[in-house]
Amino acid sequence: MKHDTENLAKRAGQAKTAALDLAYSAGELRDRALEAMSRALEERVQEILEANRKDVEKAEADVAKGALAQPLLKRLMMSESKLKDMVEGILSVRDLPDPLGRTLEARELDQGLRLFKVTVPIGVIGVVFESRPDVVPQIASLCMKSGNAVIMKGGKEALESNRVLGKCLRDAAVEVGAPAGWLQVIETREEVAEILALHQYIDLMIPRGSNRFVQYVMEHTKIPVLGHSDGICHMYVHASADPDMACQLVLDAKMQYPAVCNAIETLLVDEQLAGTWLPSAVAKLREAGVVLKGDERVVSACGEEQVSLASEADWSTEYLDHVLSVRVVSSPAEAIDHINRYGSHHTDAIVAQDDQVAKRFLREVDSSSCMCNASTRFADGFRYGLGAEIGISTNKIHSRGPVGLEGLIIYKYILEGQGHLVSTYAGDGAKPFTHRALREEWSETS
Amino acid sequence: MKHDTENLAKRAGQAKTAALDLAYSAGELRDRALEAMSRALEERVQEILEANRKDVEKAEADVAKGALAQPLLKRLMMSESKLKDMVEGILSVRDLPDPLGRTLEARELDQGLRLFKVTVPIGVIGVVFESRPDVVPQIASLCMKSGNAVIMKGGKEALESNRVLGKCLRDAAVEVGAPAGWLQVIETREEVAEILALHQYIDLMIPRGSNRFVQYVMEHTKIPVLGHSDGICHMYVHASADPDMACQLVLDAKMQYPAVCNAIETLLVDEQLAGTWLPSAVAKLREAGVVLKGDERVVSACGEEQVSLASEADWSTEYLDHVLSVRVVSSPAEAIDHINRYGSHHTDAIVAQDDQVAKRFLREVDSSSCMCNASTRFADGFRYGLGAEIGISTNKIHSRGPVGLEGLIIYKYILEGQGHLVSTYAGDGAKPFTHRALREEWSETS
Repeated sequence: MKHDTENLAKRAGQAKTAALDLAYSAGELRDRALEAMSRALEERVQEILEANRKDVEKAEADVAKGALAQPLLKRLMMSESKLKDMVEGILSVRDLPDPLGRTLEARELDQGLRLFKVTVPIGVIGVVFESRPDVVPQIASLCMKSGNAVIMKGGKEALESNRVLGKCLRDAAVEVGAPAGWLQVIETREEVAEILALHQYIDLMIPRGSNRFVQYVMEHTKIPVLGHSDGICHMYVHASADPDMACQLVLDAKMQYPAVCNAIETLLVDEQLAGTWLPSAVAKLREAGVVLKGDERVVSACGEEQVSLASEADWSTEYLDHVLSVRVVSSPAEAIDHINRYGSHHTDAIVAQDDQVAKRFLREVDSSSCMCNASTRFADGFRYGLGAEIGISTNKIHSRGPVGLEGLIIYKYILEGQGHLVSTYAGDGAKPFTHRALREEWSETS
Repeated sequence: MKHDTENLAKRAGQAKTAALDLAYSAGELRDRALEAMSRALEERVQEILEANRKDVEKAEADVAKGALAQPLLKRLMMSESKLKDMVEGILSVRDLPDPLGRTLEARELDQGLRLFKVTVPIGVIGVVFESRPDVVPQIASLCMKSGNAVIMKGGKEALESNRVLGKCLRDAAVEVGAPAGWLQVIETREEVAEILALHQYIDLMIPRGSNRFVQYVMEHTKIPVLGHSDGICHMYVHASADPDMACQLVLDAKMQYPAVCNAIETLLVDEQLAGTWLPSAVAKLREAGVVLKGDERVVSACGEEQVSLASEADWSTEYLDHVLSVRVVSSPAEAIDHINRYGSHHTDAIVAQDDQVAKRFLREVDSSSCMCNASTRFADGFRYGLGAEIGISTNKIHSRGPVGLEGLIIYKYILEGQGHLVSTYAGDGAKPFTHRALREEWSETS
């Protein structure tokens, strides 16, 4: 155990060193590395599937013993077609514009004293995840594109798969010139907790897995965490809503994929619709296999045989299943209050034809994605057109909502002078600054 | 104590409620509040100075007893002229452009389905600070301008001053329409730790005070912290440097104001200058009152009577005083390695006429501000032209370096559709997205 801990710190240090190199690497090198990474997955497909087969066999035995849940097994399993998707994913990340070295702002402070705000990578990204091995190539390619080093630790169910995938991707990139330590797949027998303690080395932590897992990560590290735990999303159907549209949107937002964070868990319905739209919507939801829990007004409008009585806890419960809580509200204000109080500030939608009410909802709901007449299921990096998705964040700083490559980027200030002293600009007779916006980009050569 | 804790949570809840209101307040209301806040300080100058006098008297007694350091007393003391500066500070924040409601990106996902990324406030800002009461109007005005609510707790030495300032600013803003709970000055007898535990209510914590204080805050809260603890800044004099320029820059960077975070603590000198420029620079530094600690090569070049031998710990020490550690390096690579290893990633500068070497330094040093032929003392929000300074951050996410109002801002995604379902874009026969960039701004009325 002591040996493992030392080894872990050593490898984290190697990642830190590699990060300093990658930070100023040419975009062309990083793209070449991504190309090589994609090729390596194609060439070593048999080796990768062989490793995955070992994990799957072990997992099947665990499922038989009841030590592992069946859905995890499905997520663990790889195939030639899944590998093809991984290869395509890496190439699509390669094709994104280089996020590094962009000049965000340029300003003359005084004659000959020029300030540039230039994008740079964050440094070392820590990734801890549960069983899906798809995370390995996905995060590795995003980190390579953005010039970050990465330390990964997956679940023990995917040990063999992650090991081969990691080695494959790392070696391929290193062969074409990436720094040796850039990707570290950790497989000590220690728990995730040991990675979470590496705050000297890791600048940003990305957890991938169940809510409980993400919650655990958030509560047990000093490293900033990018992600979300709960996804308690709402759809509010206003009196002005188009009834058919509302029905379809609720069905899509609940049932298009109920197990994900941007599916709705609570439906809020204007009281004017309680006797009309609501019972018919409830009937359609039940037809689609949804179990409904409602407040008293919902139960009395639809009948106990359709809707069971919700408890206070239901309003803060993420079912991730074919279950929906339903509440009647008297006004848009009550809907907004309910969402800001019980929601997880993830994604919430209104269905309304009244523009003024819709705009108010979009303005006042404090969620990372606020929608009008659209399904909450759109809250996703690919659908939003971000090119690649790192995750969805309910943080209030750095990155919020679906996060693309820009979530792995920060900036530094570069100041170029000609011997300028601060004493010239201080005290009596201080020279004033010009603070003139420049159109120049910072360049490494000029 | 129980009573205080309950009261604290209640007030934090009031701040949260106020934050939801402020988030969509008109820029005009926030500017009117700032105007009223500045006027209130002018009108209640006697009341404020009277409260400050009580604090000062108590502090003087503590200084006499040796219970308080003299410099703290000076920082605590207010005057009509200091109040005038506060008033001007508030008005200059009012004059900045409204940071809220700006559309950062707009994209059509498909016909009639439009995505907007719009700036919004972070929510509730927590501010904990040591004695200077200037922090109260400064942070209060930045938070009002950016639509954030704020919970503040200052040092007990400034209890009376902070109480009056806080009440004055809060009431003035509320009178013209700001939500009642927007500014909470906490003065329970509890320690700062109690504020640090309010992660359900506070979205971002800004500590102001000594390194030790900031370090304490960073290590004792789950709330994201904006700031820096150490400022171990370097200046590296390359062989190609203009000798006079180098000497002036070193003096400015060390002595223009030695007690601040962006003053240099370590001088790195190219070995080619060890026998020539170095001894003359050391002589000038000593003349200016600087105490020097050098490595063996520095000591042997300058003599033991000029420079005492530095220990390993000196390279990681922030003196904040008339002390400078000096080291001879053999190459730019060695200088860069030293800085990335011992520095605090705050602000570091090179003096060089060789452009290639300078660019390499600017590229490879991993600090929030990297400078060439300019004094590290320029690393400051006002000098950088940011309009207002929240602090200097050595974080690698959200905001780095001198931070202006944009450090108090985040964004949310707004999606406007016409009944769009995700099922249309999924599975077999999935409709493709258009992902077309739009030039529109999101508007609350159209």
